[in-house]
Amino acid sequence: MFLKVKTSEEVLKIIETFGPLGEETVPLGNAFGRILSRDIVSPEDLPGFYRSSMDGYAVRAKDIFGATETLPTMLEVSGEVRMGEKPVVALEPGEAAKMPTGGMLPQGADGVVMVEYCHELDQNTIEVARAISPLENVILPDDDFKKGVPVLKKGRRPLRPQDLGVMAGLGLSLANVHKRPRVAIVSTGDEVIPVTQRPEPGEVRDINSYTLSAFCQQSGAEPVNLGLCRDDFEEIKGKVEKGLQEADTVWISGGSSVGVMDLTLKVFDSFENAELLVHGISISPGKPTIIARIGSKAVFGLPGHTASAMVVAEIFLAPFLCRLSGAGHFSESLHDEIEAELSRNIESASGREEYIRVKLERREGDLVAEPIFGKSGLISTLVEADGLLRVERNTEGLYQGEKVKVMIFNPKKGEFS
Amino acid sequence: MFLKVKTSEEVLKIIETFGPLGEETVPLGNAFGRILSRDIVSPEDLPGFYRSSMDGYAVRAKDIFGATETLPTMLEVSGEVRMGEKPVVALEPGEAAKMPTGGMLPQGADGVVMVEYCHELDQNTIEVARAISPLENVILPDDDFKKGVPVLKKGRRPLRPQDLGVMAGLGLSLANVHKRPRVAIVSTGDEVIPVTQRPEPGEVRDINSYTLSAFCQQSGAEPVNLGLCRDDFEEIKGKVEKGLQEADTVWISGGSSVGVMDLTLKVFDSFENAELLVHGISISPGKPTIIARIGSKAVFGLPGHTASAMVVAEIFLAPFLCRLSGAGHFSESLHDEIEAELSRNIESASGREEYIRVKLERREGDLVAEPIFGKSGLISTLVEADGLLRVERNTEGLYQGEKVKVMIFNPKKGEFS
Repeated sequence: MFLKVKTSEEVLKIIETFGPLGEETVPLGNAFGRILSRDIVSPEDLPGFYRSSMDGYAVRAKDIFGATETLPTMLEVSGEVRMGEKPVVALEPGEAAKMPTGGMLPQGADGVVMVEYCHELDQNTIEVARAISPLENVILPDDDFKKGVPVLKKGRRPLRPQDLGVMAGLGLSLANVHKRPRVAIVSTGDEVIPVTQRPEPGEVRDINSYTLSAFCQQSGAEPVNLGLCRDDFEEIKGKVEKGLQEADTVWISGGSSVGVMDLTLKVFDSFENAELLVHGISISPGKPTIIARIGSKAVFGLPGHTASAMVVAEIFLAPFLCRLSGAGHFSESLHDEIEAELSRNIESASGREEYIRVKLERREGDLVAEPIFGKSGLISTLVEADGLLRVERNTEGLYQGEKVKVMIFNPKKGEFS
Repeated sequence: MFLKVKTSEEVLKIIETFGPLGEETVPLGNAFGRILSRDIVSPEDLPGFYRSSMDGYAVRAKDIFGATETLPTMLEVSGEVRMGEKPVVALEPGEAAKMPTGGMLPQGADGVVMVEYCHELDQNTIEVARAISPLENVILPDDDFKKGVPVLKKGRRPLRPQDLGVMAGLGLSLANVHKRPRVAIVSTGDEVIPVTQRPEPGEVRDINSYTLSAFCQQSGAEPVNLGLCRDDFEEIKGKVEKGLQEADTVWISGGSSVGVMDLTLKVFDSFENAELLVHGISISPGKPTIIARIGSKAVFGLPGHTASAMVVAEIFLAPFLCRLSGAGHFSESLHDEIEAELSRNIESASGREEYIRVKLERREGDLVAEPIFGKSGLISTLVEADGLLRVERNTEGLYQGEKVKVMIFNPKKGEFS
């Protein structure tokens, strides 16, 4: 039942074995941020008609061949094209039709002269001071999309506003997307009480339900909060069973003490179809992490201490949710990184990959990363930190003044630029 | 009623005159991504009791003064501290109590020896192989937060998972946050039809309702979709009235033709308490943009062409929503920027600030920005583009091989690193 502690690279490889969830169909208006489960090809030619890209006059190009400011050509205005209507006019030689941007070209016309080059002599006559090539200022029926061309690739990245716009333009009012991962979240610990209760000495309020739920929201997943549970085999087992029924993965955060970790392990192991995948990761903080497969679903035992659980979330659960949501590939660069100068030496002799919380500050124009150290078990360091700094395994540490890459917690890094 | 075309700097200054919306109280579990409307100070000392940060034994430091591996000190184990309980034991001189990480120190104890340095001789006796200083491995009652210290600042940035965690730890089960901006969205145009309809020649499907709604979601605002409307004064006026009742701002995207822009302007101007603020911005695309203040609310007339409307959204509406949501300050660096090498010359003689869509590609290790040009009015360029490149006013353009900063559309820039 026990495994050797794994490196973060090994754990990420294991995480990659979990595939995307199935697909569902959602109205286009609800598809923002979702991941396409099928490639999209254009179902039609777009715009589907000859369309003016300018305000001006539709003409027959050869009628105004050679027209210049000094030698303009006179044309008869046979009518006006209205937006959204098939033109009632058709151009005979020597005729023009008034044309709005986006309007449909009338029969017989093969180009549009911009309004700037047309001078109205009277209601029915204009002078054109410039020649045009055929099809000038005209969008062809398949200029935007040709029926059958690829438009958007499945699994590439969450749908952006402009991607939805293009789908709307093509009349795709429904989107086939991967299901959003549902994550069952459980906090264990005999000392843990609900946030609304006043703790007695020795008790602490439930923090991880809030951090992990918000982390799910941030990652496009749906948290299913199963609440608190005591450090008791049957209670934990009941929560895991419920979680497996209601969600796509179960995350239990428990005490960091060895005993509680063993309890979670025993619960996972008690399922008939369980396979233990990870029992300890050689990172700090975050070592006491368990991953198992029960049936086809991954279950995680996370450190009870919030700062450790959050490191595990950033480094492993973010790519895990990425896999489940169908994003084709992932890398550690799920995070925005920003370069900063390290404010002091960081020693590292642990032989483990270390993650140090840092605060970012501008000092005389330079962005400086200030490591936040504190007693293990404090939560106050969480609010101060702007990001995480990785210290690789088997290095002696990092030096003051060194340029380091900081993984930013908040997706908006604008505040540091 | 008409104003001079304004620069983007002038428009951003005008946008800054709109203040944050009022506050509301939400359950902590719903506060992810919201902006605090009040500073938070710690309501209590945290953890509130002497807490062990290690698995081990609670001791009196002076009892094991001088203890080493070769000369260990023997202590009597008087009991075990349980998680979440006030210890029943109290340490007499020469006694120790078994201690879990996070447990409360018993009366009389002033430090914790890690379990690694303790050797159980029998059920009631341990040998301790290491001395400790007083308070070693102990978190003091106010080590995490002292009552009254600042915890989180109002209006700084959207609440992160860890911020919610700290609030939970402090028992703050409700959060005072700024209201989320509600944005009324209207698409005008005689040629515009619902996405679910098949266009007749000359008609196009409604795109902007989708792009602008998703843009609101992306910016933490709530879209209120008021649907389509014809290019008709009364119809548009009705929509604006409805929008002003139901939302905090109204965005009308209309045809890019001069006539339609004038219609929007007339509608805005017809409100008794209207003040025209912006009538044209010297950027390309996006010039035909109108901003007015009706009462205390901003109303926007946006270009009908989606690519132009999206540029206006990225450059002006993002900071506008930032203001309304109460984020203290904003800059254009709301966007993630990434440096890339320009693949070819971009000429610019317009005298306007220009925004060019670019595709980012890795070529032989270098990140290259490839400008996307196309006939004006196409939507296909929208899906290809990864970001926007700004060409400053009064420059001749940008040169091939130049290092340029690209504003990334998608907040996750990981895919290019």
